[in-house]
Amino acid sequence: MKRWDTVAIVGVGLIGGSVGRALLARGLAGRVIGIGRRASTLKKARQLGAVSETTTRLAQGVAEAQLVIVCTPVDSVVPLVREAAAACPPGCLLTDAGSTKARIVAELDAGLDQGVAFVGSHPLAGSDRSGPEWARDDLFQDRVVVITPTARTRVRDVARIRALWRALGAGVVAMSPRRHDETVAATSHAPHVLAALLAGATPRRYLPLVASGWLDTTRVAGGDVETWTQILQQNRAAVLKSLDKFAKVLDAMRRALAEDDRPAIAGLLEAGKRNRDAVGN
Amino acid sequence: MKRWDTVAIVGVGLIGGSVGRALLARGLAGRVIGIGRRASTLKKARQLGAVSETTTRLAQGVAEAQLVIVCTPVDSVVPLVREAAAACPPGCLLTDAGSTKARIVAELDAGLDQGVAFVGSHPLAGSDRSGPEWARDDLFQDRVVVITPTARTRVRDVARIRALWRALGAGVVAMSPRRHDETVAATSHAPHVLAALLAGATPRRYLPLVASGWLDTTRVAGGDVETWTQILQQNRAAVLKSLDKFAKVLDAMRRALAEDDRPAIAGLLEAGKRNRDAVGN
Repeated sequence: MKRWDTVAIVGVGLIGGSVGRALLARGLAGRVIGIGRRASTLKKARQLGAVSETTTRLAQGVAEAQLVIVCTPVDSVVPLVREAAAACPPGCLLTDAGSTKARIVAELDAGLDQGVAFVGSHPLAGSDRSGPEWARDDLFQDRVVVITPTARTRVRDVARIRALWRALGAGVVAMSPRRHDETVAATSHAPHVLAALLAGATPRRYLPLVASGWLDTTRVAGGDVETWTQILQQNRAAVLKSLDKFAKVLDAMRRALAEDDRPAIAGLLEAGKRNRDAVGN
Repeated sequence: MKRWDTVAIVGVGLIGGSVGRALLARGLAGRVIGIGRRASTLKKARQLGAVSETTTRLAQGVAEAQLVIVCTPVDSVVPLVREAAAACPPGCLLTDAGSTKARIVAELDAGLDQGVAFVGSHPLAGSDRSGPEWARDDLFQDRVVVITPTARTRVRDVARIRALWRALGAGVVAMSPRRHDETVAATSHAPHVLAALLAGATPRRYLPLVASGWLDTTRVAGGDVETWTQILQQNRAAVLKSLDKFAKVLDAMRRALAEDDRPAIAGLLEAGKRNRDAVGN
C-alpha cells in the first residue's frame, strides 16, 4: 500500500488506538493525529505510541489528512464524519469502525461535501476491554474487516479502503450494510445480549463458585454498557430477529428437559457442538 | 497430607488423568492404577504419566487401593462406586468427580458395604476438551472443589476427602448435594445449555464471520454431548428453574428492544456487567 502522509483518528480507544499503533508500527503513515474529547485519554494514547500528535479540535486535526478513521461509539459516527468531511482537504477518504452499518451508511450515503468519500468499515476484532491502554498493533492481524460500499461508492474508494485494512493484516469482505447488520446481529450482538442476561441472572451468592465455563460464556458482558446500548438500538430489528429465533430453541430445550426427552436434549446439544466444532477455538 | 500407597482412578479422561498426574507429580501416591474400558485410552494415560499401572478389570484394579476416585460420566458413577466398594479393602475411601451430586449421593448414601466410605466431590475445573491428552497436573490448582457430605458421613472421612483435594492445590467447599446441584445449575449447566443453543442457532453461512465474542460465548458448546446430556438429565429440575429465570430476562430484553426502551436495554446490560465485573477474568 502507498504510505499515507497524514492520517487522523477520531476516538483513540481500543480500536482507534490499535489502528494508530498498527499504522505507525508498519510505517504506513507519516503522522497519525489522534482526535478526542478528553486530553487525558489523548495523552495516554500518545505515550503508548498509538498516535504521533493529538488535538481536541476535530476541524484542526483533519485539516491535512488524506485519511480519516472515526472510531467512536456508533451514535457519534455520523455527526463526526460530517464534521470531518467539512474540514478535511479535497480527495480525503473517510471511514469508521462501527459495529452497525445500515443507519450510518444510509445517512452518510445521502451526500457529503463534494470531493470527499466515505466507505463504512467494521473490523471484527475487539475485546471486552476499552481504552487505548488495551490497543495492540496486531489487533487486526488475521481478522476480518467487513466493508460496506453502496451503489454510489466509487470503485477507486473501495480499493483504497480495502488496501488500508489489508495493510493492517486483515482479510477484507465486502457486503451491503443491511446484510452486515443481519450477520453481526447473529454472530455478535445477540451473543452479547445473551452473555449479559446470563451474567445478570446468576444469583450473586453463587458467583464465588463460577468456573471457566461461566467465565467464557459471560466474558463479553464486561463490555462498555453505553457502547453496547447504542449498538443494540441501532440494530434492534435484526437483533430482535436473532433473539426471537433463540427464544424458540430455548423453549424447545425447556420442553425437552421438562419431558426428560433424552434424544431431544442430545439433539439440541449436538447442533451446537457441530457449529462450534466447525469454527475452531 | 499423608501419602497414599495405592490409589485407583476409574475413568482416565481429562479429570481422572489430571488427578493421577497431580498425585504422581506431587509424590502423593506410590501407585496410581488407571481403570477403564478401552485399552487404548489406558495406554495413552500411562504414556502421559497420568497413571503408573492400568487394567480394564475394576475389581482387580481396586483390590489394594486405600482411595478410589470415579471420574466417569455421571450416569456411570453409582454402579462403578458400588462395584469398587464391593472389591476394595476395608477402610477404603471412595469419591467421584461428577458434575451432579443429588441423585448420586442419595443412591450411595443408602448404604455401601460396611467398612468403606463414599463422599461426593465435584472439582469445578475442566474444559471443553476431553481425554487424557488434555490432563494437567495443575488442573485443580487454585480451583474450587465442592464436597457433599451428608448426615451419615463420618467426620473423619470428610477430613480425608478435604485433605485429598487440598493436596492437589484446590480450595474445598462443603455443601449439601441439593444445594450443590442448584448452584451449578446456575453457574455451569444453564450456561452450557445457552452456549449450545446459541451456537446451534447461528446460521452456518455466518460462521466465517464470527469473532472473539461468539467464540468465547459458545466455547463450552464444544463439550462432549453424551457427558452433558447425562448431566442435564440428572439435574433437570434445577436446570429448568435456571432456564425459566433466564427466559424471563430474555423476554424483558426483547420487549425493551421492541419498544426501543433505552433505559431498560441499558439496565439489563448493566446488571450483567455488574456481576461479570465482580468476578474478574
